Amino acid sequence: MAPPSDIQELIRENHLPPRILLGPGPSLCDPRVLQAMAAPLLGHLDPAYLKLMDHIQELLRYVFRTQNRLTLPISGTGSAAMEAAIANLVEPGDAVLICVNGYFSQRQAEMARRYGGQVREIYRSWGEIFTLEDVTRALDEGPAKIVCLVQAETSTGVLQPVAEIAKLVHRQGGLLIVDAVTSLGGIPLEVDEWELDIVYSCSQKCLGCPPGLGPITFGPRAEAVLHNRRTKVANWYLDMALLEKYWGPERVYHHTAPITMNYALLEGLRIVAEEGIQNRWERHRRNAQLFWDGLSDLGLVCHAPLEYRLPSLTTVRVPEGVDEAAVRRHLLDTYHIEIGGGLGELKGKVWRVGLMGYSSQPENVILLLEALRREIG
Amino acid sequence: MAPPSDIQELIRENHLPPRILLGPGPSLCDPRVLQAMAAPLLGHLDPAYLKLMDHIQELLRYVFRTQNRLTLPISGTGSAAMEAAIANLVEPGDAVLICVNGYFSQRQAEMARRYGGQVREIYRSWGEIFTLEDVTRALDEGPAKIVCLVQAETSTGVLQPVAEIAKLVHRQGGLLIVDAVTSLGGIPLEVDEWELDIVYSCSQKCLGCPPGLGPITFGPRAEAVLHNRRTKVANWYLDMALLEKYWGPERVYHHTAPITMNYALLEGLRIVAEEGIQNRWERHRRNAQLFWDGLSDLGLVCHAPLEYRLPSLTTVRVPEGVDEAAVRRHLLDTYHIEIGGGLGELKGKVWRVGLMGYSSQPENVILLLEALRREIG
Repeated sequence: MAPPSDIQELIRENHLPPRILLGPGPSLCDPRVLQAMAAPLLGHLDPAYLKLMDHIQELLRYVFRTQNRLTLPISGTGSAAMEAAIANLVEPGDAVLICVNGYFSQRQAEMARRYGGQVREIYRSWGEIFTLEDVTRALDEGPAKIVCLVQAETSTGVLQPVAEIAKLVHRQGGLLIVDAVTSLGGIPLEVDEWELDIVYSCSQKCLGCPPGLGPITFGPRAEAVLHNRRTKVANWYLDMALLEKYWGPERVYHHTAPITMNYALLEGLRIVAEEGIQNRWERHRRNAQLFWDGLSDLGLVCHAPLEYRLPSLTTVRVPEGVDEAAVRRHLLDTYHIEIGGGLGELKGKVWRVGLMGYSSQPENVILLLEALRREIG
Repeated sequence: MAPPSDIQELIRENHLPPRILLGPGPSLCDPRVLQAMAAPLLGHLDPAYLKLMDHIQELLRYVFRTQNRLTLPISGTGSAAMEAAIANLVEPGDAVLICVNGYFSQRQAEMARRYGGQVREIYRSWGEIFTLEDVTRALDEGPAKIVCLVQAETSTGVLQPVAEIAKLVHRQGGLLIVDAVTSLGGIPLEVDEWELDIVYSCSQKCLGCPPGLGPITFGPRAEAVLHNRRTKVANWYLDMALLEKYWGPERVYHHTAPITMNYALLEGLRIVAEEGIQNRWERHRRNAQLFWDGLSDLGLVCHAPLEYRLPSLTTVRVPEGVDEAAVRRHLLDTYHIEIGGGLGELKGKVWRVGLMGYSSQPENVILLLEALRREIG
């Protein structure tokens, strides 16, 4: 016999369904990360919390592969970190070149326009990369103070090489901003070796933490531009000149830090360091390969060509005659598996499967493959 | 015998000291709120999460005492919510009047200037309120499209009456933005009855949640201004036109919500509703009175006069010859009690004691009084 309706209501209210998160993010969290958030709060100027901030910065430098002094988590999601990069570098009238081949590069362009940038866009279709020649040609037509590139496009599943383009951008006197939202902690990224000027990311993908923080790093060229601005940054909350006084030795109050989110990030970064960053990259690659091989056995086709396919996020073409939304709903309702639908130009055409952070495990791969087999078989 | 040094290092690394948070925020959290964050993640477009968003909005309307449709938590701290209010209302050239009598009204002015507002400031010393006559005089000199007021000034401990000023601002065709960062959930606040146009707050004070979210509400006049802007909001992350499409029935992806922080907020709001908002106001008032009476017995003087003294945050004058920073450090090191120092003009002159949310308990009051007695006795 079912319990009475008021009891049922109480059960429903507090019940969070189980989920195996294999979409474009958030990904699953290690239980250690979730438990870290249950620790009691410290004040944002407590000596014990300030020490913890230092540890976060040190571990962020480890995962970014950088010595950059100005490396910290923005108190907002990855989109806030994207906006921090653009708001702090772009002044009204600045020439900005955006390489648009997906949803998130479109967002960079939208933000750069809002900060008064003279935005020029070059295009590649959603699923292609930009070549060195593409960027050379664009910069030959006119230099750019800032060039924006997405290393790991969450909307297309494409991995964009960035090291050679950074050198090209520097040669004509500009700076490169790189979106590493879907790569940091899961895909090789070498901020110092590749001479990247600003790189930003998020907490909830390959770092395996909940959403809410946006790690960012500014290299020496970017710091110089920051300190030579003619105008104040239009955005107060994301103004790096104010943020660096809180994160630096001065410890000047700016905003009340999201203490608990930073507990989670610290624990997540410790887990990355315990695994070793290169081992983590290799795990992401290995589980992606397992998934790609399985897709091929099922007769399913990846949207991005193998030579620049992103291990952390795979776009799978929806076969002719299949209702992609119905499949996603069924996976969620029956097996508690979340995968993503297509975004922008690829809406309705692909599924987006993330194998990131704690979600990147062989058991999740073979479970999803079997579930897909039953859906479309 | 002490454990070997490598074991000691391990202990230190993971040890968070206990804290009784009686400063200007964050305040302590109910263990239920902390535990809520340990729940596994849902995706930000999961039907179960969307339902939870609806519950948060409904409960926020309950604590704001409003029917405003556009009521939601900003994915950043209280400062981000302040910026959301200003960025969305102020267009370049708009006449903005800021009533400056503390640190956070100065911040409103700084932000309004960054968004191109023609900012006029009127002043009262730190510890006084603005009268109806002050604002009448300022608006007679020239109308303002936007007037900013801080209901509960965290830097001075002053409670500013706002209802009559709202009517005044409306009569000359403007809108009132109210800072309720240190009042929401602890001090009477009647958004609809007082006809306040935009009110923003934070999660970590009287709501008793960790820092990281900024509840905000827009009334009908503010919505109208929002929908008739001539220019795009300069700030993409805080653009209400984009945020309302995610929080509204369209559910259009904007940014990946801080899922876990919203679990905490929902649990915190449920606790507020269980207690009853009026009972909660009364509890804050009662414990403040207990504290004020005890201070008086110790011969200590409150900076703000009784008639407009804030129950949630008390500024206590530092007695002649006492090293205020040494007292704070000693309270923290010996009794694990955090209180705040003075900010801005009151730096070195006052202590700031918060009795907010879960921290507002008689045992905390009598403990702090006894600790203070031992410090200065």
